[in-house]
Amino acid sequence: MTTAAGHTNQELIERARRVTAAEKYDIGTRFPAIYRRAEGSWMTDVEGNRSLDVTAASGALLLGNCHPLVSAAITDYIQDYGTVFASTLSLPRIELAERLCERFPAGEKVVFGKSGSEATTMAIRLARAATGRELILTSGFHGWHDWHQSYLQIGYDAGSGVACFGYNKTAFKRLVAEFADEIAGVFVTPEPAWFDAAYYRELSEFCAQHGVLFMLDEVITSMRYGPNGVNGTGEVPADIITMSKGMANGHSLSAVLGKAEVIDAYDDAGIGGTYTREVPPMAAALAVQDFLADGTEHERCQRMGKLLMDGMRDILASVGIPAWVGGPAMMFDVVVPSEALSWDIYRAAFDHGAYFEDSGTQMVTAAFGEAEVDHALTAFEKGARKVAATTDFEVSEIGFDRKAQFAAEAFGGALEDDDRVLKSIEETVRQIAERTPGISPRPLPACG
Amino acid sequence: MTTAAGHTNQELIERARRVTAAEKYDIGTRFPAIYRRAEGSWMTDVEGNRSLDVTAASGALLLGNCHPLVSAAITDYIQDYGTVFASTLSLPRIELAERLCERFPAGEKVVFGKSGSEATTMAIRLARAATGRELILTSGFHGWHDWHQSYLQIGYDAGSGVACFGYNKTAFKRLVAEFADEIAGVFVTPEPAWFDAAYYRELSEFCAQHGVLFMLDEVITSMRYGPNGVNGTGEVPADIITMSKGMANGHSLSAVLGKAEVIDAYDDAGIGGTYTREVPPMAAALAVQDFLADGTEHERCQRMGKLLMDGMRDILASVGIPAWVGGPAMMFDVVVPSEALSWDIYRAAFDHGAYFEDSGTQMVTAAFGEAEVDHALTAFEKGARKVAATTDFEVSEIGFDRKAQFAAEAFGGALEDDDRVLKSIEETVRQIAERTPGISPRPLPACG
Repeated sequence: MTTAAGHTNQELIERARRVTAAEKYDIGTRFPAIYRRAEGSWMTDVEGNRSLDVTAASGALLLGNCHPLVSAAITDYIQDYGTVFASTLSLPRIELAERLCERFPAGEKVVFGKSGSEATTMAIRLARAATGRELILTSGFHGWHDWHQSYLQIGYDAGSGVACFGYNKTAFKRLVAEFADEIAGVFVTPEPAWFDAAYYRELSEFCAQHGVLFMLDEVITSMRYGPNGVNGTGEVPADIITMSKGMANGHSLSAVLGKAEVIDAYDDAGIGGTYTREVPPMAAALAVQDFLADGTEHERCQRMGKLLMDGMRDILASVGIPAWVGGPAMMFDVVVPSEALSWDIYRAAFDHGAYFEDSGTQMVTAAFGEAEVDHALTAFEKGARKVAATTDFEVSEIGFDRKAQFAAEAFGGALEDDDRVLKSIEETVRQIAERTPGISPRPLPACG
Repeated sequence: MTTAAGHTNQELIERARRVTAAEKYDIGTRFPAIYRRAEGSWMTDVEGNRSLDVTAASGALLLGNCHPLVSAAITDYIQDYGTVFASTLSLPRIELAERLCERFPAGEKVVFGKSGSEATTMAIRLARAATGRELILTSGFHGWHDWHQSYLQIGYDAGSGVACFGYNKTAFKRLVAEFADEIAGVFVTPEPAWFDAAYYRELSEFCAQHGVLFMLDEVITSMRYGPNGVNGTGEVPADIITMSKGMANGHSLSAVLGKAEVIDAYDDAGIGGTYTREVPPMAAALAVQDFLADGTEHERCQRMGKLLMDGMRDILASVGIPAWVGGPAMMFDVVVPSEALSWDIYRAAFDHGAYFEDSGTQMVTAAFGEAEVDHALTAFEKGARKVAATTDFEVSEIGFDRKAQFAAEAFGGALEDDDRVLKSIEETVRQIAERTPGISPRPLPACG
């Protein structure tokens, strides 16, 4: 089939293979469609096929594509006001910082970046510069930047000065108690399908007792855990939070919010970046804030997410695929017996017009209504039924071992204190104690 | 004075101080204006004052704000097509990669990021993953990310596995000859006011002879050195180039171009990033490519830059301020006896409606005509004359020592082989030889 523009998906994928990368990150591992346009969560590919996005573009979208309020705010800004100025300050930057400080308890001051990874790198730098210490403890995924390349194992990485504790509380308490005076901050990405608010609150309190900064990486959760993220529940105090996905509804923008004395370490942290002043995404973010202001959108969005989550759980049960489905309504996890099976189910659902996240974390947008939920469930049921018909399952339910495997592979969760974990805690303590710190908490200033 | 929106610059700067940072990076060190809008290179602040931008927003702008072709391309895309899709590939990404490969000799394949710093971090990762080696040699500024925090001194940084040679050829040749088999790449930012194409060509050839990847950081130069950067002159072959500023005329976008086998290392390099798929900036970048296609815009822009550069040199001579003015017409350096004097001159010129870069690197946009050059020169002359009237100069011209000082402070240029330099070369060789490599050339895959 040929498109208006004269291309097929396959032709374009082959063109992409010739001039861009990468085979495993995108070209060969996403479902085979090149989208030409999207409205709300409905995408139309170059051959005219429509598909419903159940990934929210890896969480980047909150209100769906072409949302009239956001589109108007950002395009008016670009057309009537401009894009970047010689000065780094702008009205939207100041107003957005004020709005975010009102919304999130951790926010006394805010600085901006372009991507979630830039926000987490800035957060580490700020914590180091503010404390004059170099050691970072962390759990979970914080992006692709240099400081964060060993998040799936409990251990210490000498090159980056970062130790991972894999959400394991024994490891966390041992490391904080042992090295409290040397830790710049503890930086944790909430995995709310796996650990509840009480878990994060316990970490936060333990840090406070030991004089250690507690930092929440809310790049994904800040607008998906609930209206104001984990920090905004009021249950989990934090010295720094990072946010990005959804804040400008797909336009690239990220932020670090925190205590004034931490954010004020910016100058000593060597942070810079010409595009941090780019104004139109901030205008978009203000429109997002307006849209969400009265709380009804989040309430409706969570309702749709819950319908979808419950529906997927019921379908998996009815077709006989063992599954564990849980988490916040706007970002829930679906764990089936294997990664390969997960891919097969969603690949089959894709043929019926729904683009799910094949790893299993599903996300709705505010453009989801009951029609979208129904469409997603219909496609999912067809996919699940097809796979169930041709698969023998060795287990009848998802047990602890499979959950632990999923957690270990997805975000480095070490769910129990088995021998391997206890051994790696001791090894990590030893490595940190014997380290020669090579990271300067206060690097050179940046230009631009 | 009060604005349409009821604010003064000073009030807004104080509001900014309360909720954002940073004093030295922006709030306290940029000229005191909050711009409300800009068209071309003319900015209007919240009090209604007009000022001409001679910084091109730190180089981010190429055609000026509100350029009709770019504005139309990006706003049409946002309104009619969308912002981000579940799939990472898009027509604009594929077409832009093709166009850039046609334009730059180094480009066999292209991958995208959001900022110049993201591009340079990706480049390092790609070089390491493609070669399986960890050591990086570098000169010049490459952004604010972690791998690059010691660019002003010849030396080796164990944490990042990066050695700086400060544009010193003796250092460069010694390090490459000594460690050729261990070097992932040599990564140099062109400083074209200081070193000519023959200099970079010599580095490139020496790398090729020793089987080492040669990488040019053209984040600033790719569209300002000339129409196609240093690499596009055909005089300086490179295995990787990075680009960003100007490519989407202020909308955040960056790219890494390189040999296919290097870019194909993406999957092994642990690179990711949800917003790398953001489509509207790519639509803007395609419009920029269209606008520049016939070469007349660059020709005109370079003519305006030369008028400005020559005019500034003449003014400094006529008011009696010792100065060295040189470099490509679209990004030239103005060196005066001290940094403080530089600030004073441009601060005074700002009061006459021109916003220069106070450090001395001036950049025009394609929105500059003769009226803009005249306005800039008039303001500059008033500023220079005011400062000259109240300053005693100890020197009558900018000698080698001041040039060497400027180079050392601005980009780490070690212009001569003095004792200190020769000693630090030997110390660096020793440190590299004795290092325990801690960087993994092939880190974990990223999500999202």
